[in-house]
Amino acid sequence: MQNFELTILGCSSATPTSKRNPTAQLLNIAERFFLIDCGEATQIQLRKFKLKFQRINHIFISHLHGDHYLGLVGFLSSLHLLGRTTDLHIFCPAELQEIIEIQFKHSQSYLKYKLIYHPHQYINNHLIFEDDKVEVRTIVLNHRIPCCGFIFKEKQILASILKSTILKYGLSVEQIIELKKGAELVSENGNVIPNEQLVFNKLKPRSYAYCSDTRYDEGLVEYIKDVDLLYHEATFLDNMNQRAKETFHSTALEAGTIAKKASVNKLMIGHYSARYKDPEPLLIEAKSIFENTVLAIEGEITSVEHI
Amino acid sequence: MQNFELTILGCSSATPTSKRNPTAQLLNIAERFFLIDCGEATQIQLRKFKLKFQRINHIFISHLHGDHYLGLVGFLSSLHLLGRTTDLHIFCPAELQEIIEIQFKHSQSYLKYKLIYHPHQYINNHLIFEDDKVEVRTIVLNHRIPCCGFIFKEKQILASILKSTILKYGLSVEQIIELKKGAELVSENGNVIPNEQLVFNKLKPRSYAYCSDTRYDEGLVEYIKDVDLLYHEATFLDNMNQRAKETFHSTALEAGTIAKKASVNKLMIGHYSARYKDPEPLLIEAKSIFENTVLAIEGEITSVEHI
Repeated sequence: MQNFELTILGCSSATPTSKRNPTAQLLNIAERFFLIDCGEATQIQLRKFKLKFQRINHIFISHLHGDHYLGLVGFLSSLHLLGRTTDLHIFCPAELQEIIEIQFKHSQSYLKYKLIYHPHQYINNHLIFEDDKVEVRTIVLNHRIPCCGFIFKEKQILASILKSTILKYGLSVEQIIELKKGAELVSENGNVIPNEQLVFNKLKPRSYAYCSDTRYDEGLVEYIKDVDLLYHEATFLDNMNQRAKETFHSTALEAGTIAKKASVNKLMIGHYSARYKDPEPLLIEAKSIFENTVLAIEGEITSVEHI
Repeated sequence: MQNFELTILGCSSATPTSKRNPTAQLLNIAERFFLIDCGEATQIQLRKFKLKFQRINHIFISHLHGDHYLGLVGFLSSLHLLGRTTDLHIFCPAELQEIIEIQFKHSQSYLKYKLIYHPHQYINNHLIFEDDKVEVRTIVLNHRIPCCGFIFKEKQILASILKSTILKYGLSVEQIIELKKGAELVSENGNVIPNEQLVFNKLKPRSYAYCSDTRYDEGLVEYIKDVDLLYHEATFLDNMNQRAKETFHSTALEAGTIAKKASVNKLMIGHYSARYKDPEPLLIEAKSIFENTVLAIEGEITSVEHI
């Protein structure tokens, strides 16, 4: 079965601590490696966890607060110094291009590979990337500055079909492909045979929604409905919900509420304020609303399983 | 006696490793805390070694290669988030101001403290900072892009004078101050009494020279002559001296040679290429020319003693 694995590289909010780094995640879907946000020291975290830099071809930056992108120029420089020549795609706020280019200009660095920018359009459910295995869409988050979340979704994985079934019904190549995709079979005499009776290993495509920095916003629910894994920031405990509102962040209670309303399978919380040396109380609070919640912990890998 | 202590925060060259961070140092002279270069993750290193951020009022950036400044915006943001209101001085290439300002503009951050820029003029032995205890001068390094080193020097520490000496010679306040500074005493009958016979605790001011990134350049010697501690980069071993030349860096042998020619008291080498997992061979090579050499090691504190 193809991989669908999320590795947490950083889980702190704006002020890092000696134990927690700013936001960054590495998502592997079917050996496509997506770097999601790139806070300061992301390249150091990648090295620490022995993750290979050069397999990353797509970077997704949610917004231009430093704790979500300040590791980018260092990471791009290292790719260059390590000999990269393959194109690299960056999905990001348009202004990031200026920020990157001015720094390479003043360091007189000329990358040996091509950076291709895909500026955010801040549209919900907007397709920004697809290949034969995966598609990625933006959702618009409710933050102090323009900010996008991302939904990563596997494409339909073709089901399997027994040779005996093929022979029994005398299936053509075209019919086999359609059945694997989920079609019914209509026999010559007009009988309909349901797809379930013809194929096996039929898997529901898995999905991951990343909501980096956002206020509590029920408007998100329709776009992240039923995802297998939801990452939702939980900067504060509920006793600081006023502070959360003012700073355009969420509480753990609010993250749990969004997960529940969206009927996701699993919730992961992160982006913990530096005031919480131990994030356990945030977990307990989110779980009080949505039981299947886990903490983002640096270096840990979460496999998204088929349900 | 007043402090003169150097803490290494990062000692790697352009590509950090999982064990070594890019260049940054914290120098404490008489409770003035100078941050020298600020590679990525400097703020994380400061936290790790439990060094207080807000005591830093002066930052010195040698040049605009990322491994010497990419930690700066994150550090400045954290100072702001932690409530700083005190002015902060940055001695740096003029272009750094644009790099910093564009990033705060796009993150819509408005610092609660004032950043005061002091652009490098790339002049040797040029005084860029002084107060009652310390002076700092630039030296021009020989690197691929404009780059300054820095010389930090204690001001003359006033010697002590015994009360009995004051009474014996009937010294005025003005005379006492002159004697403490090192003057001779000329008595009424014209006799000259050497300073050494009148004062004690006469200390030679200590000095530290920081040569971040530079080719081997004997032109440096006259400016760093006799410093107590010289930090000189040693990116490569001598068997890579061609590569050192091409990349405008030095070998450990060359760092030792400069230390010897400048008759410094102690040499510290750093900025090790990622290819040297263990920097010991670099130390052995430098010591073959200049015995009193030490390695820059992250978290270690070097006290500069009076000699």
